[in-house]
Amino acid sequence: MSDNQPTFSAESYFRTQPSPPNLEHDLTGVRNFVSRQIAENRKVVLVTSGGTTVPLEHNVVRFLDNFSAGTRGATSAEYFLEHGYAVIFMHRQFSLQPFSRHYSHSTNPFLDFLEIQSNPKDGESPSETIAIQPATVPHLLPILAKYRAVQQSGALHTLTFVTVNDYLFLLRGVSQELSRLGRDVMYYLAAAVSDFFLPTQRMSEHKIQSGKGTLNIEMDQVPKILKPLVDEWTPEGFIVSFKLETDPSILLSKAEAALERYGHQVVIGNDLNRRKFEVVLVARESVLKSIDSTNWTEIEGETGPDKFVQNWLRLREGKTEIEEDIVNELIRYHEGWGRMGKASRN
Amino acid sequence: MSDNQPTFSAESYFRTQPSPPNLEHDLTGVRNFVSRQIAENRKVVLVTSGGTTVPLEHNVVRFLDNFSAGTRGATSAEYFLEHGYAVIFMHRQFSLQPFSRHYSHSTNPFLDFLEIQSNPKDGESPSETIAIQPATVPHLLPILAKYRAVQQSGALHTLTFVTVNDYLFLLRGVSQELSRLGRDVMYYLAAAVSDFFLPTQRMSEHKIQSGKGTLNIEMDQVPKILKPLVDEWTPEGFIVSFKLETDPSILLSKAEAALERYGHQVVIGNDLNRRKFEVVLVARESVLKSIDSTNWTEIEGETGPDKFVQNWLRLREGKTEIEEDIVNELIRYHEGWGRMGKASRN
Repeated sequence: MSDNQPTFSAESYFRTQPSPPNLEHDLTGVRNFVSRQIAENRKVVLVTSGGTTVPLEHNVVRFLDNFSAGTRGATSAEYFLEHGYAVIFMHRQFSLQPFSRHYSHSTNPFLDFLEIQSNPKDGESPSETIAIQPATVPHLLPILAKYRAVQQSGALHTLTFVTVNDYLFLLRGVSQELSRLGRDVMYYLAAAVSDFFLPTQRMSEHKIQSGKGTLNIEMDQVPKILKPLVDEWTPEGFIVSFKLETDPSILLSKAEAALERYGHQVVIGNDLNRRKFEVVLVARESVLKSIDSTNWTEIEGETGPDKFVQNWLRLREGKTEIEEDIVNELIRYHEGWGRMGKASRN
Repeated sequence: MSDNQPTFSAESYFRTQPSPPNLEHDLTGVRNFVSRQIAENRKVVLVTSGGTTVPLEHNVVRFLDNFSAGTRGATSAEYFLEHGYAVIFMHRQFSLQPFSRHYSHSTNPFLDFLEIQSNPKDGESPSETIAIQPATVPHLLPILAKYRAVQQSGALHTLTFVTVNDYLFLLRGVSQELSRLGRDVMYYLAAAVSDFFLPTQRMSEHKIQSGKGTLNIEMDQVPKILKPLVDEWTPEGFIVSFKLETDPSILLSKAEAALERYGHQVVIGNDLNRRKFEVVLVARESVLKSIDSTNWTEIEGETGPDKFVQNWLRLREGKTEIEEDIVNELIRYHEGWGRMGKASRN
């Protein structure tokens, strides 16, 4: 790689950057999980969630990060589980997780719904124990019941990443394991992955010292990983990627450009300020062949052979989470995707 | 400010950067809290904790961050409370907090110690409720009891920040409120504050677009806030700052340089890889005048009038948290600091 050509290809990225130390261990866990799901005839979705970091130093003190609490991924994972999918939940360490997300440190801190009770027993010295405040039970009980049911069914497998490098190596490895599932796998790539990284060869060994004026950071582009994912690692997978923009006027064109460039199935477009109650699904029309697609409309101005279509989802009255509808819709398309595969084999 | 002189002074920083929207509300809360502690004759410690972010965009998607889970601050706050201090816990949103820190999402996730119980009552239809698993009670009960006691005493006040700008404005405002306490206030500045920032005037309005080659970021130095803190905002406060380094060979010299430059009382030096079981307290000898300082030794080579001394603390056998000893030591020095103040007034 010459200095004049700073952009890494996926191939040169994986050749020159170090693989994370626990990668093989993580992939063995995925392999076993996938085998069990195949035996139980479950479809699998890989949900990625949370932001990735870009360390500026080998001994990491400072890093570039992407804003993401992991709400979309953790919430969606619950709905996929409810619909019978097995879920590989690949998330940023400490980001929100399915079920426990309802009780974070700030929303409903759990110490606040516990109470100390004195337990005087006949003939024994009084002792204290802990009870759940009764007012909490109606909200917590169904969540706990679902959590326990998922633990028993073995339908949830969790992986963690921190850096963008962890993420890229994990995604490649996991998708290669998942390719065994053919069309029975969905990729729901909700993680907020950095577009830039600092090659390990240019990283500072120790903490960058201040006191020397301004800080200058020059980062390379992260390779476009969707391309090899679609073309090589999991050619039959149903792949849903996400676009988050702060400028709504470029959201649709960015989504179309991604579909055109990578050839996958669906892009979910989010405007940063509206993403909790409105998203747009964008797809190539050919992907919708075998489903009822009456709620999709053509994107204005698109008339070529590879027409783009859009489907706006808005939070329905009485609902609290738009992820319920996103997941419902995607599962319909995934079924269609499976039928298309069967049709093309016949 | 000319282009040739990019470094902001504290004065020019606060004049040119926007104050956070909820600042006045936060400071009113602190003012009332301080009044109550003065009425109850409590000493107050401001504990800062967690990392600060440096947003790269006004509509924040990307930011620079400092590594910190907030363990040191959250743990130390508990020990200060145990010793009768009132604590203002000023921490990064979602970083660890006193008491709840023992049950994070990953260590001891709380859903795992709850169980669903059937509650058949005479003459009623059976219902379900939630109970704490008995094995959890011995660990959780003392934490919950302390948490409840602190809530009832009103000795803990929590403030949150996200960006380095939030932090700087809050620290200035809070220290001005705390200066009413004279020598009865300690500053325990454990937050990992960015050394660099991006002035609001140079920040990108929308998400920085990739696809245009490398990303170049140039950041200015954050003004050295300890200087006005010591000289102007809280001249009688007992101020403890922290140094975290990844290269142990520069730790002592960095700590001395900070004391020399800012004129405060103690620097706690941390090596990134040893900080859980070893820290060094560094002070000017004159600060230790009125305490038993037999466990302090001079730093080699220092012979001037302003001699530097060091005190290494190591995790004792049978203990789990070095913060217990750090806080014990500092409270001794803070008492000495109070006696020095009385002596100088007589």
